[in-house]
Amino acid sequence: MKFLSDNTAAVHPRVWDAMRAADAPDSGYDGDALSRRMDEAFSDLFGTECTALWIATGTAANCLALAAMVPPHGGVVCHREAHIEMDEGGAPGFYMHGAKLMLADGEGAKLTPQAIERVIDPIRNDVHQVQPHAISLTQATEYGRVYTPEEVARIGSLAQGRGLGLHMDGARFANAVAHLGCHPAEVTAQAGVDVLTFGCVKNGGMNAEALVFFDMELADVVRYRRKRAGHLQSKGRYLAAQVLAMIEGDLWLDNARAANAAAQEIAQACGSRVFHLVEANEIFVVLSPAEQATLRAQGFDFYDWTAPEGAPGAARLVTAWNTDPDHATALARAISAL
Amino acid sequence: MKFLSDNTAAVHPRVWDAMRAADAPDSGYDGDALSRRMDEAFSDLFGTECTALWIATGTAANCLALAAMVPPHGGVVCHREAHIEMDEGGAPGFYMHGAKLMLADGEGAKLTPQAIERVIDPIRNDVHQVQPHAISLTQATEYGRVYTPEEVARIGSLAQGRGLGLHMDGARFANAVAHLGCHPAEVTAQAGVDVLTFGCVKNGGMNAEALVFFDMELADVVRYRRKRAGHLQSKGRYLAAQVLAMIEGDLWLDNARAANAAAQEIAQACGSRVFHLVEANEIFVVLSPAEQATLRAQGFDFYDWTAPEGAPGAARLVTAWNTDPDHATALARAISAL
Amino acid sequence: MKFLSDNTAAVHPRVWDAMRAADAPDSGYDGDALSRRMDEAFSDLFGTECTALWIATGTAANCLALAAMVPPHGGVVCHREAHIEMDEGGAPGFYMHGAKLMLADGEGAKLTPQAIERVIDPIRNDVHQVQPHAISLTQATEYGRVYTPEEVARIGSLAQGRGLGLHMDGARFANAVAHLGCHPAEVTAQAGVDVLTFGCVKNGGMNAEALVFFDMELADVVRYRRKRAGHLQSKGRYLAAQVLAMIEGDLWLDNARAANAAAQEIAQACGSRVFHLVEANEIFVVLSPAEQATLRAQGFDFYDWTAPEGAPGAARLVTAWNTDPDHATALARAISAL
Amino acid sequence: MKFLSDNTAAVHPRVWDAMRAADAPDSGYDGDALSRRMDEAFSDLFGTECTALWIATGTAANCLALAAMVPPHGGVVCHREAHIEMDEGGAPGFYMHGAKLMLADGEGAKLTPQAIERVIDPIRNDVHQVQPHAISLTQATEYGRVYTPEEVARIGSLAQGRGLGLHMDGARFANAVAHLGCHPAEVTAQAGVDVLTFGCVKNGGMNAEALVFFDMELADVVRYRRKRAGHLQSKGRYLAAQVLAMIEGDLWLDNARAANAAAQEIAQACGSRVFHLVEANEIFVVLSPAEQATLRAQGFDFYDWTAPEGAPGAARLVTAWNTDPDHATALARAISAL
Repeated sequence: MKFLSDNTAAVHPRVWDAMRAADAPDSGYDGDALSRRMDEAFSDLFGTECTALWIATGTAANCLALAAMVPPHGGVVCHREAHIEMDEGGAPGFYMHGAKLMLADGEGAKLTPQAIERVIDPIRNDVHQVQPHAISLTQATEYGRVYTPEEVARIGSLAQGRGLGLHMDGARFANAVAHLGCHPAEVTAQAGVDVLTFGCVKNGGMNAEALVFFDMELADVVRYRRKRAGHLQSKGRYLAAQVLAMIEGDLWLDNARAANAAAQEIAQACGSRVFHLVEANEIFVVLSPAEQATLRAQGFDFYDWTAPEGAPGAARLVTAWNTDPDHATALARAISAL
Repeated sequence: MKFLSDNTAAVHPRVWDAMRAADAPDSGYDGDALSRRMDEAFSDLFGTECTALWIATGTAANCLALAAMVPPHGGVVCHREAHIEMDEGGAPGFYMHGAKLMLADGEGAKLTPQAIERVIDPIRNDVHQVQPHAISLTQATEYGRVYTPEEVARIGSLAQGRGLGLHMDGARFANAVAHLGCHPAEVTAQAGVDVLTFGCVKNGGMNAEALVFFDMELADVVRYRRKRAGHLQSKGRYLAAQVLAMIEGDLWLDNARAANAAAQEIAQACGSRVFHLVEANEIFVVLSPAEQATLRAQGFDFYDWTAPEGAPGAARLVTAWNTDPDHATALARAISAL
Repeated sequence: MKFLSDNTAAVHPRVWDAMRAADAPDSGYDGDALSRRMDEAFSDLFGTECTALWIATGTAANCLALAAMVPPHGGVVCHREAHIEMDEGGAPGFYMHGAKLMLADGEGAKLTPQAIERVIDPIRNDVHQVQPHAISLTQATEYGRVYTPEEVARIGSLAQGRGLGLHMDGARFANAVAHLGCHPAEVTAQAGVDVLTFGCVKNGGMNAEALVFFDMELADVVRYRRKRAGHLQSKGRYLAAQVLAMIEGDLWLDNARAANAAAQEIAQACGSRVFHLVEANEIFVVLSPAEQATLRAQGFDFYDWTAPEGAPGAARLVTAWNTDPDHATALARAISAL
Repeated sequence: MKFLSDNTAAVHPRVWDAMRAADAPDSGYDGDALSRRMDEAFSDLFGTECTALWIATGTAANCLALAAMVPPHGGVVCHREAHIEMDEGGAPGFYMHGAKLMLADGEGAKLTPQAIERVIDPIRNDVHQVQPHAISLTQATEYGRVYTPEEVARIGSLAQGRGLGLHMDGARFANAVAHLGCHPAEVTAQAGVDVLTFGCVKNGGMNAEALVFFDMELADVVRYRRKRAGHLQSKGRYLAAQVLAMIEGDLWLDNARAANAAAQEIAQACGSRVFHLVEANEIFVVLSPAEQATLRAQGFDFYDWTAPEGAPGAARLVTAWNTDPDHATALARAISAL
């Protein structure tokens, strides 16, 4: 019973079906019918005109987006624990040609206008210091926290006022929207987001994410950069198929709801052990080494985590679109029984 | 009846099967059982110890390999019409951080030791000129020409003598080996090749190539760089599955033989129209605009090509692993009848 | 008697005087009075509003200018024998983050609209090929050839029509203008040049060139990039002093005229030995090894050069602002006497 | 009476003399007699074989050194307030092609082995996280603090144990050695430093620093990179002259001692106002806005500074090699009188 990560879950049957259907011959790269349908499909989904490009990984998607907004001599504000800072092996430095990540603090890996200002306000407007050109948010955050539309909009407003681009890393965007119950545009286009990394891989896809450009001019640069990064696959239709399967018929939300529901069931059982509010599909809990051992002995797999100060130990539990409800219930019970 | 390119052909059923079988849960990135089997599988295939990494595209594979051999201030010798120079959207400059492609000439896009020396010998050994650090060959070339083991070995010998790395872009390596009928090591490891881009996508794969390192130390750098380039997919097992399916049971050779055979049948019919010796699965033929129109009217799709001097026009015909033999026969007859 | 290169000549006394005068305390970087006078001084010189920044070397100046016009995924057209391609150790690749030099041909290292079109017209407007974003000319060229105002204007017109930036490497701009006898704006601002590398070092300066921006917005990026490249010297006033000393009182033209006159005297003596029309301060002459030895035995220093086809040998003779007229006369006589 | 910065002070007369003497013709770039003398001169100075290259600015010198030790996918540990992080306009990202600065804490901008370990120990040894490849110290630090030989040696030992390179930014190295009274090798070569940026500009030079390589292999890469960065000046002899003038006859120490002495005199007067121990030529003092105004009204120029918590205000006072002792005394008295 695996609660290690959502990023290795099996591919959803409807995604498989869509991929198989893409076997029919068509044009290469993104000249095929499926790839060409993406702009319209995402414009419909968001209720606003946008451009969408498939790309195999979130790391590449995030970094291509940022590189379109930030010149090599610029910087981008992100949370100190953001994926782009912690877990992308220096990809932002590569894609942005040496531009700088400017690290802000915030509870639950969430940024606030104040936290961003604490980073950018002390920067002298001279050539000796790297100047900020963009902000990158993660929705849901590395700790499974979710920005409300109002929270994003306040940051969007700051970005606009300072002339900064706004990127959203939505590796778990579906989980966030499923939690909020809002229209996806409310936390993106309407809140000032310029580009969204719309995650599919953690949510039932195989190897395709979508970059959604509400500022459509940015896509023109990214088209060239995607090829230049070796990310323009010749059989792109198999990626487009995945992405379209995810958004058509709301599979993305159904999958996210399933993962979130499993997380909620477990979170209830954890009670005050939880140290980051559970809003998406990740649960961070205080668990002593002995308790962890007990759970593992019952067949539950999960990662150790850094415990909050004073706690005897901690773990991260992640649910996925295909988490067996019985497994979630079993884990909830096992934790209650500790 | 499509003879446009092999890079959009459907995925082979055995590749599909292998991918479906990879749906079972396993570790992320390249920690799964399939990814961990790659070194051994390729070591068996080549009869020599090597390291193999999957990567989604040939462009990324080529450039990651080169970046491990060439420092940012260095250069790599390749043919003036090599894919890395002509068709990768500047990816070598990106991955190698500005290192330089040094362009050599040669019939059929083939390099020779002499052609390479004509490029590197005039370079003064001082800091004002970029120094060569590697050579990149394409097997088969952009014009479907194949290097014999002796030809590669002579270049390998030059590379070794000059302290240069040797990379082989094998997007159509299978077609070359199928043509040569040699052991794959004879044109690679035994001939001085340090890294091979082992192509699968044009040969029945979906979106996985393999980088095969005979100089295994280079792989250590590439592991980091692959992640840094956003090419370390979290569900890497679906890529490993494709690659393993290609090499296990010699599917790679069977597929290439089928493509080559179709090409030979068409080439026979083309006779003296052919202006690059047909050794793999590409046929370059003199065809006047009127002749092209005649063929297209019969349902044959192919690309116009730049005609040799004095010729009235030309076309490129490409076969693939799944080219219907009846289509190849039909095209051969239609050309004979012109 | 040295005719090796103009790039090691002594510093002109008036430049020394200006540097000494800069010893007085002032603000750091380019906040001092001298640096702040540069915009106005160059605007006066060119008769049009422009922005000017000092920079220690021509290589850095050229590459900073190009990097402001060309994105990392783009390219710049230059002559196959341009300094940026041949002699800058890969600096363009570094400064432009991997952007590509696109090499054109042309007699005497001069570009023409036709030669440029032969490079850019075959480039498909798709993401697989690097797209041109700028053109770089060298005035005078590597072979001492000079573009007339009309020739530059034709290229400027092409650049504008194609949406390309236009850079001029003017390491020997003074020699070119001295030869043409025109107003400096006629071959730059009025002919469509966006940025000029205004050379001083080869013309009596120590280590300061000026980047002159007729497209002044480009300077905003270059200010940041100059610092980022470690080229914003803290005692910038000593560089500004050099540049201002060169242009005030027309020292730049006086020095260039002296060098050109010496070259003309030698060229006259060379007669049909000359294989590049002598328009600036470089003379390329057919000289057999024996003749070279004869001259060297008489105390003349110069570089061997690649001989034109069929010629027994060749040499490059370069004069400088401080070439002793007696030395020039002596060399002219010695060549006549061969 | 200026106490703003040492980086704009006049050039020392002996440096001027050396530069004038370099006017005699010689080879270009670093082929001249002065440049060729640098290795020996620095080997003598440090009492150990080393290689030394001139370079115009400390920013370029630091970044070239780091780029020789750190691959683009790596990282370098430095203090959170190091010049390379705070004041070089992103130059490290440019020169290191996107490698990462890893920020450590420490009083007075000094690193300790413990502070470094707190940064590098949590880094998992996998491809998802950037791995450290070097450490960069600043001697004296941004706050005028000096590492003792033992302190450097402890960090050198850590570096060696972890396989990390060790770079020392010695923009104010002379002030540090003058303070320590030790042999310069004791805080560098003997303590495990691989490369030293030996500052001259702040200490009476015009625009030349020296990169001193105790790990001489690193110099081979830097030679190419210096050219590639546009920092190989053609009249390099004027830079070599500056550097040699600084170290010959111990001018570097004499100048530093003068600056340090002036700083000590002022520091004495400041008493408990001082909030960073004064060991070199910078004094950080608590001064209320009113006190600052009083001093400025008496003709003293200096920069405001961020005050320690609870303090009413602060200022930074910097002395230089040419600080008039009368000015220092006057400032000391004025502060005493506050």
